[in-house]
Amino acid sequence: MARNTTTPTTNGHARRPPTERRNRDDAVMAAAVEVMSERGYAATSVQEVADRVGVLKGSLYHYFSSKEDLLYRIVQESHTQTVQIAEDVSALGLGSLEELLEYLRREAVWFLNNRDRANIFFTDRRHLTGERLQEANAWGRYFERHLQDLVEAAQTDGHVRDDLDPRLVTRYILGGINNVRLWPSRSGKKFTNTEIAEAFVALTRSAIATD
Amino acid sequence: MARNTTTPTTNGHARRPPTERRNRDDAVMAAAVEVMSERGYAATSVQEVADRVGVLKGSLYHYFSSKEDLLYRIVQESHTQTVQIAEDVSALGLGSLEELLEYLRREAVWFLNNRDRANIFFTDRRHLTGERLQEANAWGRYFERHLQDLVEAAQTDGHVRDDLDPRLVTRYILGGINNVRLWPSRSGKKFTNTEIAEAFVALTRSAIATD
Repeated sequence: MARNTTTPTTNGHARRPPTERRNRDDAVMAAAVEVMSERGYAATSVQEVADRVGVLKGSLYHYFSSKEDLLYRIVQESHTQTVQIAEDVSALGLGSLEELLEYLRREAVWFLNNRDRANIFFTDRRHLTGERLQEANAWGRYFERHLQDLVEAAQTDGHVRDDLDPRLVTRYILGGINNVRLWPSRSGKKFTNTEIAEAFVALTRSAIATD
Repeated sequence: MARNTTTPTTNGHARRPPTERRNRDDAVMAAAVEVMSERGYAATSVQEVADRVGVLKGSLYHYFSSKEDLLYRIVQESHTQTVQIAEDVSALGLGSLEELLEYLRREAVWFLNNRDRANIFFTDRRHLTGERLQEANAWGRYFERHLQDLVEAAQTDGHVRDDLDPRLVTRYILGGINNVRLWPSRSGKKFTNTEIAEAFVALTRSAIATD
């Protein structure tokens, strides 16, 4: 989470080159993710986000129109990145069980590299309202639906146990992947993100695979 | 979560028989758990808790001294019940893997029967302050420590795989058990709490057992 180091005194963002605008935009989002993950949505203030970026509060409204807008963008970006992972893995043309496990491996690494974003997705999504809430809840269901499609395909191929309803198998995997971001926060020996992701995939494989 | 149905007009709680006082206390706690789970700690108001119990706000301060006190009691009760489950299962004198699985089965049922309490434990514990926060975090560690003790004992006995560090195996199980309360909230077919708990235990057994 690198902080933007350009001077914050100008409000002439329309004259900036696109790259600088993009960098500032990224810095604003990174600061917002940090603050919201630490404080929770209800206790997040736009003032604190501004303080972390090093700009006046008013200038932040070039980047988003309200606190809810900020939450929406954070959640939307997380969803977009998750969909990209699913599409990248599908494009590999793996077998059904291998595709499921590779998807889990990459999702686990994403969660571990984006713990703050993931915390917000799980804890604060409910603070969205109206159409935005419906959209965000649909994104959560997309994630589960994609997992369940992979589970069902692997059950049909005989590579995943079919003594349990695919919805139960899916929720089991979903519970595991949704919590993998919390593994490093405990005390004791540090494990790398790769070690954690590999252990998660190995244990999940044993739980569900028929061979 | 039965609501207390006694009339809320009297404030003469000191003259009530102990049983009635206990019932009212339970009703206050049940309403507080409901409100806090729905709204989150920051957005919870003592006024709304009072409205649900059907008493004046001021009379609630017979039962707790502050909103933080209420959160502390909710978290403390959850911990006490969890410790009781661990002690009950230990007293059965089961083998190491069987004790681990029976503990998970009963914890899963507890989480499923106490979803609101569990939501508060996971989401709002961080809002406690000072010694109370330290105490609550120690309770979270107790839960993980007990699981890890069971995992290590079963690894020593050769009943749980030892190709993975016990801390990784423990965090895997912990992630699963901590999310089991969320399994029923998804759309589609309803599963009973027993079906969910048994599926969770069967999948976890396959993930970790050597036989």
